[in-house]
Parts: sequence; structure tokens; C-alpha cells
Amino acid sequence: MSQHHYSIGLDYGTNSVRGVVVDVADGREIASAVYNYQHGDDGIILDRSNVHVARQSPEDYIAGFEYVIAHCLEAAKQSANITPDQIIGIGIDTTGSTPIPVNKECLPLALTPEFKDNINAQAWLWKDHSSSKEAQTITELAQNIRPQYLSKCGGVYSSEWFFSKILHCLNVDEEVFDAAYSWVELADFVPAYICGINDVAQVKRGICAAGHKAMFNEQWGGLPDKEFLSQLHPKLAALRDRLYDKAYPADEVAGYLSDAYQRKFGFSKGIPVAVGGFDAHFGAVGAGVGEGVLVKIIGTSTCDITVSPVEQKVDDIPGVCGIVNGSVLPGYFGVEAGQSAVGDILNWFVEKICDGDADYHNVLTEKASKLQPGESGLLALDWNNGNRTILVDVELSGLLIGQTLQTTQAEIYRALIEATAFGALRIIERFEEYGVEISRVVNCGGIANKNPMFMQIYADVIGKPMEIAGSTETCALGSAIFGAAVAGSAAGGYDDVEEARKNMFAKSKKVYHPSEKNHRVYRELYGLYRTLHDSFGVRGYQEDLFPVMKELLRIKKECSQA
Amino acid sequence: MSQHHYSIGLDYGTNSVRGVVVDVADGREIASAVYNYQHGDDGIILDRSNVHVARQSPEDYIAGFEYVIAHCLEAAKQSANITPDQIIGIGIDTTGSTPIPVNKECLPLALTPEFKDNINAQAWLWKDHSSSKEAQTITELAQNIRPQYLSKCGGVYSSEWFFSKILHCLNVDEEVFDAAYSWVELADFVPAYICGINDVAQVKRGICAAGHKAMFNEQWGGLPDKEFLSQLHPKLAALRDRLYDKAYPADEVAGYLSDAYQRKFGFSKGIPVAVGGFDAHFGAVGAGVGEGVLVKIIGTSTCDITVSPVEQKVDDIPGVCGIVNGSVLPGYFGVEAGQSAVGDILNWFVEKICDGDADYHNVLTEKASKLQPGESGLLALDWNNGNRTILVDVELSGLLIGQTLQTTQAEIYRALIEATAFGALRIIERFEEYGVEISRVVNCGGIANKNPMFMQIYADVIGKPMEIAGSTETCALGSAIFGAAVAGSAAGGYDDVEEARKNMFAKSKKVYHPSEKNHRVYRELYGLYRTLHDSFGVRGYQEDLFPVMKELLRIKKECSQA
Repeated sequence: MSQHHYSIGLDYGTNSVRGVVVDVADGREIASAVYNYQHGDDGIILDRSNVHVARQSPEDYIAGFEYVIAHCLEAAKQSANITPDQIIGIGIDTTGSTPIPVNKECLPLALTPEFKDNINAQAWLWKDHSSSKEAQTITELAQNIRPQYLSKCGGVYSSEWFFSKILHCLNVDEEVFDAAYSWVELADFVPAYICGINDVAQVKRGICAAGHKAMFNEQWGGLPDKEFLSQLHPKLAALRDRLYDKAYPADEVAGYLSDAYQRKFGFSKGIPVAVGGFDAHFGAVGAGVGEGVLVKIIGTSTCDITVSPVEQKVDDIPGVCGIVNGSVLPGYFGVEAGQSAVGDILNWFVEKICDGDADYHNVLTEKASKLQPGESGLLALDWNNGNRTILVDVELSGLLIGQTLQTTQAEIYRALIEATAFGALRIIERFEEYGVEISRVVNCGGIANKNPMFMQIYADVIGKPMEIAGSTETCALGSAIFGAAVAGSAAGGYDDVEEARKNMFAKSKKVYHPSEKNHRVYRELYGLYRTLHDSFGVRGYQEDLFPVMKELLRIKKECSQA
Repeated sequence: MSQHHYSIGLDYGTNSVRGVVVDVADGREIASAVYNYQHGDDGIILDRSNVHVARQSPEDYIAGFEYVIAHCLEAAKQSANITPDQIIGIGIDTTGSTPIPVNKECLPLALTPEFKDNINAQAWLWKDHSSSKEAQTITELAQNIRPQYLSKCGGVYSSEWFFSKILHCLNVDEEVFDAAYSWVELADFVPAYICGINDVAQVKRGICAAGHKAMFNEQWGGLPDKEFLSQLHPKLAALRDRLYDKAYPADEVAGYLSDAYQRKFGFSKGIPVAVGGFDAHFGAVGAGVGEGVLVKIIGTSTCDITVSPVEQKVDDIPGVCGIVNGSVLPGYFGVEAGQSAVGDILNWFVEKICDGDADYHNVLTEKASKLQPGESGLLALDWNNGNRTILVDVELSGLLIGQTLQTTQAEIYRALIEATAFGALRIIERFEEYGVEISRVVNCGGIANKNPMFMQIYADVIGKPMEIAGSTETCALGSAIFGAAVAGSAAGGYDDVEEARKNMFAKSKKVYHPSEKNHRVYRELYGLYRTLHDSFGVRGYQEDLFPVMKELLRIKKECSQA
């Protein structure tokens, strides 16, 4: 029996880091371990005076790495007698944009005695929204003088992203800004740190974070130019020289595991570590993203990821928030879209309106599953948290229409699910309008795995089979795939990502097929959804809305009789 | 000290009949009594096989009369030593349209041995909705050949009304139809019965029921003509000869209390009984309706009543459901409008959506009262049960817009109250567009008396002071006013209704004054309400709706900062 090879994937989430040991031959998960961050509330450092602040301690990232590797190796030993020398590569994905201020040696300021207790010197977690004013400033400036910067990120620069956060730091804590030699994304920091890279100029930055969150594009010479940055603040222009000029896809080697870690864990010498990327993108790879395959990660919000061959030159799709060459797979544009709230809308309804606990989702699902499409007479817009893709407008809000004196909680719950499905269909239609055909949809995330009614509604609304990804840990698996790809075939891995992906991704374990009958009803409702969507979402759009309530009533009657 | 005189008012409600003894000099209530109907569920006879059926037993009306008179007299004796000979007149109001099939002697078929157990031979309570198909048939026929019939009742003939119910009886129980020599409204039956009138041709029919519910108008010679009725059914045309040609206002004498009842209760001989009318109309009189005074009866739905001098000739207001000469006060057109659901929308939200009990209204009111106008960013349409006045369209439904992931129950509760207030304002605006100026608004009903926040919102939205009627029993008081008016001054009463009304109506006991600041915010929100109202409610109306969510957000921000 020939020697088996394994790679390790690390997935840095919002509250914990997970590691998996994966068989390079088929992607099978052999062992795993999780480390819960120790700082703040569930790993998030809050500021009582500003609800928008969300930071993390870089100590958690390092401690998490050491804990997870040690426990993965121990578990792999016990379960399959695997030894550390059988590990041939490591891949890493993280949340983002989560920038960290670092010194010239790429040490986070938070790890220096001077700044260890300064909240602005910590990692600025993706969900930190304290920089909304700066985001608006950046958006307006770009609209005026560099509209091209926004064309790859959906037309609006977000408060969650790299430059918004750095500019906000400059505005609120100039001491931290001045002390930071540079800023690195979490996805770039971890590979650099574990490889012992102690010169920030040597850190290989990932194209994923650079392209999607920092307006990096080779078309305009990388990061935004100095003239642009200087209009935001002269110090930001000066910082540009200490950031980066190149960005790399994840099939490149970020570095090799440091001697200290190699010895500590008993690995072979020179294990390659792949360039890091975002969880959603690596998760898509783990779930089998490819040409014609859309991967949906359905959680509190939704992230939709597909790829389009570079030669197709699909590089601008109006309202689609990110199209970046190589951000998901080399040789493809990574295409990212999303819905600002999906599970969050259901959580809002259950918690704030029904005053229910987590179990109440099951109660409503049980009741809602007995309803026929169209039977409630209800229709909703899925904009309680704005609209991220297509309209790219945070100043939109929810809408519910068709309620009577008999309308029930379960009917509204179902209508809200349907609304998110209509929003999902709108995104797929937009992809296809611009030449990105979708033949398969693979779904990941808690809701996809736990709620068959939800997925059946999606199949019936979208009219395509809804596959459920074969693993619930596709992010870590995606990282392991990149670990195997950078290892190369000589070490027992693969020479290119495509080969690694094909062999290792998690084959879908379940498929929800659309019902032709339900799809017909949902096509009618979707027509009404589009009417409302465009009436409230598109400036100047006008249509006679008088028929909307009538049509809902007609459909209700027909579907109740059926 | 001169002898005091008193009149008795009887108010036949949905579940009980109330009587009051009132001082003719000033309208002061001396004594009262209530009789709860004994048949069916809380007085309503239901049909398990058809949820739309709601009937009542005429036995309850008679037993109720006897009980209430006896107990009123006893209480008046005990509290103020009043003797029956001091009672000078009786007035009666009832629910409606509540038609009863009767024989030639005006005896309800339900009181004959042959039909006593037949549900279709009972009184057809106002809220019986089993005749919706017939209502549609009548509406369509009138639209085609007698559009004028609909112009006085808002353009749509309702399933709750006289001819819908009679035609439905003919369709489902021809035996009852054939056995009925005629049909009388409850408001006409009670006066006739207690006066011992035993020939249906002698029954004086009230203009209130005739004009508002039976398409009676002297312009076209009374009831709908035979050609019209024959197209509905030949037997209906034949019935017309056994109905009536004249209808009377309530300041006319319907008859004199029968000798049997006079002796039974010890009254003086020949006490006059006024022609009967509907509870809402008599309630308006009790609350002080007059030129420029709108009386709102706010309950599960709302009834709005005002009057316009006959010489002003305001006899058609588009979308206003009833304009009848003399139906409220002689010499005036009675103008009736209404909202299909007000308290019912709040009950729906509390019971069906929040899963709360009756007390939960207080919980939400407490929280909602702390909100500023505009602060929630929400806006709703009050159409969960259709729109009765202005649009006259049962095929409309509810709408809620502006919800986010933070929206609370209390915010929605307040937005629903505001929506009903916007609907109320729309009605007043329509009145005034057609020359019926409203200078004062007097509010009756449980909500008006119990919920100061609700009334303050109405004052702030409508921009007029909201008065609260001085009595919670304005219907019975209104009946007593007509009792005093038919008695005449010679007997210690009045020679005309106007004099009786002025002396006896319940002076408002409380006034909510609009806040200028809140009214400004609500004017902005009302503009958005109008946009939604006309966009969804008026065929062919088109307006750019894109600004609606933006404006709600702008107002929300401004009102939250304020």
C-alpha cells in the first residue's frame, strides 16, 4: 500500500478557528479541531460606547493556530494512525475584510506592549461598521474622479472594507495610524506569521482580499493611486508605498512553515503554505465551484460565488459586487454576489416580531410547510437590511403586502423565505443576462443543511435543482485543497488547483428538484415581485401597481382551491 | 318644583339590548339595564357548515324589550323615585341591515311553530356574510342597468344588506322565502311589535335602513323598480308589492305602545314610540352630530357620520357609502362613511402575529407611546379588510413598508394605528373636497375612551382636536332623544329633534389637541401614504415609488435625532 498524503485546511471564522486534516486523494476529512477565541464576547472585542465597533485580538489567531494544529494531528494519529510527516501542505481562509495594523516586521501593534490594550490596534473584524462615514467619503470621491474603482465592487465602497477602516483609524486614533508601518488582511497575516516572515514587504498579499475589498486591479496599476488617496488624506497616500503592488491567487505559495513550528509539531521540513483567501471563496472551492456552478453560502446573509473563464471577459455585471481575476480559481474571474439578509430576516421575524426563541423556527417551519405556494396571498421584499446585489442600495427597506385579518405568523414566515428566494433568482437572472450561465446550484450553510422546506422553496422558485454540498466544512476543505495544490505532485499533492479541486471537493449529498406545478405559481408571484422590486428599487421606474393586490388575491383563490 | 319628564332609549346591539332612562331636560342618564341574548353563541346563531352565517332569534328581541323596560323602571324608581307615568316617549335603535322574514301579521316566521327551528327563518344579523354571491349579482346588474342605485351606497352593494340576504334566502331556502309575506328590518320590527301593529302594511319603515341598505330613494320612486328586481328573480319583483313605498325619519311616530305593554309596566296611556333607526346614526345624534360635526364610532371597524343641510344638495360624494335624506336628522342629508377595519387590525396584529392576549394591547401601547412620529421609519396601509370608503374595494389588502432587522412589535403596532388615522384623514379630506366641511370631530367607542395614545395620534395626524363623547352609551341616548322628540312639548318633550338634540346630547368630556410639531411630521408621512394609497388603490395611477423608502429613512433619521 502506497503512502497516503494529507493536507491541512484552516478556517478562521468570526468566533473560532477550525482545522481539518484531509486526504489528498479524495478530500475525505480525517480529523478536525476547533479553537474558540478567548478575547471579548465570543471572540469579539466590543466598545460599549459604539455598537458598530467589532475587533479581535491577534493573540487569538496565533493561539488558535497552535491549538488547532496540535489537536488535529493528535486526532489524525488516533483515528487513522497518521503521522505529521504525511502532511504535505497547509491552506488558510479567513473572514474579511479584517485588516490588522502591523509594524515593519509584520508584528500586529496589538502584540506590542505599547498598544496591547488599545482597541484600535486590534484586528478590525469584517463586521465592524464604525467606518460608515469614511465609506461614504470614499464612494463619493470615487464616483467623482475614479468611477472605475467602484465598477468591480458593485458601485458602493462598504464600511466593512480595508480603506474605510484604515481611514477611520486615522480619523479617530492617529497615534495607532502613525505607529502602523502597514496594514495586512487577516488572510495574509496568518500565512506570513506561521511562515516566520518578519518583513512586511515580503508578505504575499492574496488577490481575493485585494481585489474584492481594496479596489486592487492590474488594469489601473494595483491599489488606488496616490492622487486618489491623497484627496482622502495625505497620510493615506503616504501609506500606499508601504502597502503592496502585487497580489497573488491562492495556488501560489505564501511561504514555508517556520522552522520553529515545523519542529514543534514534527512536520517534514519545508511544508508549503498557500496564499490565504476569504472563507466564502475557499468554501465555494470546497463545494465544487466551477464554470456554470453557483455556490450559495446561506446564513444570516448570503454569499453567491461562481467563476467565469478569463477569456470570456465578463468583467462588469451591473450591480454585482465583486468580479476579480483569480480570486476564486486561477484562470477565472471570481464572481461574487450576495443578499444582505436571509437568515437574519427570519431571525428578526421570529425574535423581534413573534417573540420566539431559536426553536420557534421549527414551529413555524412545520406550519409553513403545509401551505401551498400562493395560498397565503402574501408577497414580501427581502430588503430589511438593504439590497447588496443588483440594486446595491443600503437605503432600501422591507415590504410586506397582501395581509388580511386572517394572516398568520407561519404565512408571513413562508412569505419571507419566498422573498429571499425571489432575490436569489434575481441574482441568477442577472448573471445569465451578462453571459454567466448557471447550470447547477450548490448550497452550503446551516439553513441549507437543516431546512428542507427552505431548500424546496428555493428549487421551486428558481426552477433549478438545489444541491446540498457534501460537507458542512467546505471552507476548511477549500483551504486544504489549496494546501494540496501548492504541495505539488512530487510531494504527493497536485500540480494545479483544477486537478486538486476535482479530486477533493465535497460531492453534493442531496438534491431538491423543482416541482413544475409550484414553479408555475412562483413564476407568477415572481412577476409581481419584480414589479415591486423595480418600482421601489429603481429610480424613475413606473408601472401601474393597482393589479398587484388583485393578482395576489386571484392567485390565492386559485391556489386555495387547488 | 315642576314635574320632571323622562324618555327611554333602547339600543339593540349584536349580543345584547341596553335600555336607558334619560332626563328630557338635559339628557342625563338616570337608570339603565342590559339583557344578554339567550340564543346561540352570545346571541348569535351559527351554522357549523358555513362560517358566514350569523342569525338571531326574534325571541331575544322581545324578551330583551320586556326585561330591559322592567329593570330600567325598577332602577329609576330606586335611584330617583321616578314613576312610570313620568316616561313620555320611547326611541329604538338596532344593528342593521338585520332583516327578518315575517307573515302578513308582521309576526316573524321564527315565532311560528312551522319555522321555529329553521335557521333561515330567523333574523339575518348584519354580520351574516353568506350572501356574497348575491351581493355581487346585484352590484353587477345595477352597474349595467341602474347605476344610480349604487351612487348612494358607495358603488358596491354589500353582502350585509337587505336584498342580498333576501335573494340568498330565495336561493337556498325557497320554502322560507315563499312563506314570508314580507321582510322587515329589526329597526322597524321592534317599534311595530311593541305598538301591537299586526298588519305589515301598517309598519312604518325607517328611512335610515331603507336608504342606506335597500337602495330606497324618492328620486326613483322608492325601492328598486320591478324590472330591476325581476332580473334578479321574478319572485323578488313580486315581493316588492309586499314591502313598502314610503320611509320615515325617526322624528315621526311609529306608533303608540300597545295597551298590553302599557298596563304591564304601568305607563300612561298612549306613549309614542319613534320610528327606529341604526345604532350608529342614533349614536351620532347622542354624541351631538350636526352641521360641521363629524362623529366617529371607533370599534373593530369605524363608522363616520355627519350631516349636510338638504339645501346644500351634497348628495353624491364619490366613494362615500351612504348619503340619505333624513337618515340622521330631519332636514339634513345623513352622510355615512367608514373604515372596514380599525380595532380589528390591531386585534389581528396582537392575536395572530404577536400571539398576545387582550392585555397585550396595553403592553404595546405603553411601548409605542414612547416613540416619536416618524421615528420607526414604518408606514402601513389600513386595508387588511379592504377599503370601505373612498376606494370601496374589498379586494385590497394590507401593506407594511420600511421594516429593518431592528423593527419591533411596538413600532408596527404604532404604524398600524397611524395607518388607520391616515385612512380617517383621507375620508375627512374627501368630505371637504365635496363641500362638507368638518370643524369638530367627536369620537365614540371603546378605543376612543380607553386609549389616549390612539386619540393623540389621530389628533396629530388629522390636525384637528379630537373630542371624546360625553357618554359611552350615545346610541341609547340618541334613541331617548328621538323618544323625547316624538313626545312633543305638550307632554313635556320637544316639538322638534333639533331642540331635543341640543338639550340632551352628551357634551364632549375630553379633547385631544394636535401637536403642531407632530402634525408636521405626519403631513410628510401622509404624503407618502397617499402615494401608496393611490398607487395600489387607483387603477392606472402611476407615480415614481423609488423615493418612498428613501423619504421614510430620511424622516426616520430626522425624527430620531430630534
